[in-house]
Amino acid sequence: MKLSSKNLDTRLDTLYDAIVIGGGMGGLSAAIYLARYGLKCLIVEKGRGRSVWMQDLRNYVGFDPDTPGRDIINHGSKQAVDWGADLLRGYVEEVTDEGDTLAVRVKVGKKDSLYPVFRSKYVIAASGVIDVLPQLENMQNVYDYAGYTLHVCMICDGFDMWDRKAVLIAGSEGQINAAFVMNWFTPYISVLTHGLFPVSDSMKQKLAEHGYPLYESPIARFHGHKHQMSNVELEDGTVVDATTGLISMGSVYHNHYLKGIEGLTWDGENLVTNDMAQTTHDRIFALGDLKKGLNQVSIAVADGTLAATQIWRNIRRASPPRKWEENIAVGAGLITS
Amino acid sequence: MKLSSKNLDTRLDTLYDAIVIGGGMGGLSAAIYLARYGLKCLIVEKGRGRSVWMQDLRNYVGFDPDTPGRDIINHGSKQAVDWGADLLRGYVEEVTDEGDTLAVRVKVGKKDSLYPVFRSKYVIAASGVIDVLPQLENMQNVYDYAGYTLHVCMICDGFDMWDRKAVLIAGSEGQINAAFVMNWFTPYISVLTHGLFPVSDSMKQKLAEHGYPLYESPIARFHGHKHQMSNVELEDGTVVDATTGLISMGSVYHNHYLKGIEGLTWDGENLVTNDMAQTTHDRIFALGDLKKGLNQVSIAVADGTLAATQIWRNIRRASPPRKWEENIAVGAGLITS
Repeated sequence: MKLSSKNLDTRLDTLYDAIVIGGGMGGLSAAIYLARYGLKCLIVEKGRGRSVWMQDLRNYVGFDPDTPGRDIINHGSKQAVDWGADLLRGYVEEVTDEGDTLAVRVKVGKKDSLYPVFRSKYVIAASGVIDVLPQLENMQNVYDYAGYTLHVCMICDGFDMWDRKAVLIAGSEGQINAAFVMNWFTPYISVLTHGLFPVSDSMKQKLAEHGYPLYESPIARFHGHKHQMSNVELEDGTVVDATTGLISMGSVYHNHYLKGIEGLTWDGENLVTNDMAQTTHDRIFALGDLKKGLNQVSIAVADGTLAATQIWRNIRRASPPRKWEENIAVGAGLITS
Repeated sequence: MKLSSKNLDTRLDTLYDAIVIGGGMGGLSAAIYLARYGLKCLIVEKGRGRSVWMQDLRNYVGFDPDTPGRDIINHGSKQAVDWGADLLRGYVEEVTDEGDTLAVRVKVGKKDSLYPVFRSKYVIAASGVIDVLPQLENMQNVYDYAGYTLHVCMICDGFDMWDRKAVLIAGSEGQINAAFVMNWFTPYISVLTHGLFPVSDSMKQKLAEHGYPLYESPIARFHGHKHQMSNVELEDGTVVDATTGLISMGSVYHNHYLKGIEGLTWDGENLVTNDMAQTTHDRIFALGDLKKGLNQVSIAVADGTLAATQIWRNIRRASPPRKWEENIAVGAGLITS
């Protein structure tokens, strides 16, 4: 059921089989499977994840390509709750390894916040990443284009940049290298540093060899109409023609709550997992963008399937078999045929 | 575009980047990604795959739980073609490794069949499995329940058997062991052998200890109404009460066309793949039910993403970079800023 500050106290004595941190596509997939395995699970969703930024989802079989991420998330949340999962809007502050259980402390509500602690046998970290966006004084101007014609994922949206004039907005020199993959989709790439970092001579040389102009002045404003970009104005007055673009400024990982846990193996900010999405901690799983691999909705959804299935196997194998008592004769000699 | 016997000759000189064998959920996912990477691909779909048997799809985030597999497949096929994939209804008879290319011979049409050969750089084997069903004289009686209340996938549908009287229809003694997993969902399990094999004393003993009756007479008929099973009548006249059940008789693998290829590694009928769904043959990928792992739609869809992405990487890395020619000065000395 849906939990809130009004009824969450009814679950403070519950030992969940799994707490799923993050109600995006991976977390919802895990929760739907867990619920359908008859396991008790709680999804804690902070809101405003990467999926709800998606203005369309073009790579996921069976959906109309213009289906907004928000609709799918809302629908999937209802699915999970309908099958029996609990769902709470809140922010996970800390996970503590208590030995046989994990304790998950959640901040609920922005004002007069509550700080309930829920307990579970397993934790599924599915809280993903959020893309870094260029910071302008008028952020609404960024939001008007980001996720529409100004993309954050090349694999997802490279096709929609095909042979169009595009900006690549990089957050560091290393992130400029995205240009040399993005040129599969279009060679008309203008590189913008937004004034954030100096560019080495060797990178300048490489860009020049490819014909990709480099602009080092900060971005003043995106221009366009109804989310369709037409050009980018820089603070030095330059106007860069581009009807699309890619923001390559990295991601912020929502994984702070795991930083105090012993036994996890990190590769940078990603968790190392096995082929069932299990981390090197027996009772912690990690999905989608938090683990190594492609950041794609389909991958996160499959990871949710894997994690939930492994948790079910672990719990099932540790449980006594359910017998059909009325058919068991004394001495177990009954054979019906 | 959609191909048929009328227009397939227009593609006989095409070198596809990839031919996807099987237009189920995994194959369609691969084709959608391939098309959106701008790669030329052909899906060959024989029809009547496992997905179109699914009367509902309850574990896939974002769909209504009663969405039939057939609808999703039809929708996904349209998606793939809209993004630029070719789609042909036909049966792949053989794949031949020609060195730099793979040749795929397809039988098109049941009468006056054509046998075109298409060529590609990569092949994605996504033709899956089909579940073995108990053979009755009146197969329509089986089809009336299979996929509705008589399930073939415990992970998918175990939830819907919860604490209900259920039959387990096994095709071999080993397959009776499914009872000891299925009892997570219900302990009211009657085991039917359909008269196909003898049962050892030790298995009889184990079933008796769990209270699961064993019936060795062949099935005569499933009874019920509107796909809702009520009981199973055996040839010896016994009537077994059950409103649901699981068929555990194994699968037929659609992988015959790969049996002559050298360099593949098999684990039984499954292909061994790496974390990008690539087999041990550089140019052959395998998805979903054809590879080792869980037979779940979400897994096949993710495999399609992985295979298509790896193929794109391979082809991209082997291609010269696209430059913005008009910006390249003689001597590559131009730096715009």
